[in-house]
Amino acid sequence: MQAGKPILYSYFRSSCSWRVRIALALKGIDYETVPINLIKDGGQQFSKDFQALNPMKQVPALKIDGITIHQSLAIIEYLEETRPTPRLLPQDPKKRASVRMISDLIAGGIQPLQNLSVLKQVEEEFQLTWAQNAIISGFNALEQILQSTAGTYCVGDEVSCPQVFLYYRFKVDCTPYPTISSINKRLLVLEAFQVTHPCRQPDTPTELRA
Amino acid sequence: MQAGKPILYSYFRSSCSWRVRIALALKGIDYETVPINLIKDGGQQFSKDFQALNPMKQVPALKIDGITIHQSLAIIEYLEETRPTPRLLPQDPKKRASVRMISDLIAGGIQPLQNLSVLKQVEEEFQLTWAQNAIISGFNALEQILQSTAGTYCVGDEVSCPQVFLYYRFKVDCTPYPTISSINKRLLVLEAFQVTHPCRQPDTPTELRA
Repeated sequence: MQAGKPILYSYFRSSCSWRVRIALALKGIDYETVPINLIKDGGQQFSKDFQALNPMKQVPALKIDGITIHQSLAIIEYLEETRPTPRLLPQDPKKRASVRMISDLIAGGIQPLQNLSVLKQVEEEFQLTWAQNAIISGFNALEQILQSTAGTYCVGDEVSCPQVFLYYRFKVDCTPYPTISSINKRLLVLEAFQVTHPCRQPDTPTELRA
Repeated sequence: MQAGKPILYSYFRSSCSWRVRIALALKGIDYETVPINLIKDGGQQFSKDFQALNPMKQVPALKIDGITIHQSLAIIEYLEETRPTPRLLPQDPKKRASVRMISDLIAGGIQPLQNLSVLKQVEEEFQLTWAQNAIISGFNALEQILQSTAGTYCVGDEVSCPQVFLYYRFKVDCTPYPTISSINKRLLVLEAFQVTHPCRQPDTPTELRA
């Protein structure tokens, strides 16, 4: 099925890129990383070459099987359909619905509001509060949902379509979210999360490496 | 499979609610509508009863098969998995990826930025420009993507996971988007789009009915 290694256009700190890196790692798919620095050179995502690849001018984008897919969840669904083992979605349609609901809540309800392009439109002094508000309002909902869906991980005991919380970038206090926090802790120790961590990417600046 | 009719919690003007109404109509699924007025009574989505149903305090939510699903795309994926005929996603995984990429672009890249709760955080005089910027930036990308994926509709010639553009609410000039505009025109004449149109809902105010 594969013609050459898949290429992932990624930024070390982008949580949507991280989500795809985790999926690739969980499925054991070997790939090359092309780093797109969202800040350097005024933002490499705005280059003509990258825009041709992803007109949304965002990472991640994945070149695979002769096509280019962007939008992290669309990429993960494609990987799941074409490389089903090990699976990232449960077998039961109701549980699959829970996974997608949680993924959409994070990827559609929280993250878009903290994107660099959006934050730039908010006055600098309010940017942190803006990002925090989005996270807090999303986490209030997520905590409540997870209380009825979670086992070891978000939905039952299988690691599913991975979710990653970059809340620490925006200094959100997670004390009110015990379920989110404990699932996050259990995920972060897994190998697929360790090797794909923002502090361990080809484009991670030396001072942020760990 | 069904225990009673599905119940859709919907607001006539919510484009995410409309997306689910279209999916239900295309699949011929009979359902009841419970209108949630996002403005009246300070927003009925904030009521205790509704929050228990959807902690994100957003429409749509669908009660079906004994569960409640929110997030429009998660709902549509569930309908597709449990009621596969007629299908809303193409059979070919690459085309399915295109549909999901386009859906995520709209539902995750454009719509969250125009949500009532987000617009409220923007100073009133800038709200229209804010919403327009989000639509224009998304449409610039979408137009380019559709030029390579579209046939009669967004991906080839089958109506897929439905996308709906409420750009007219924010007075965006669509001249630069001939592909988006012509697909939209072709969709709007379909029966499933006609009967589910915001101007024809149980909760549509008389002055907006058509």
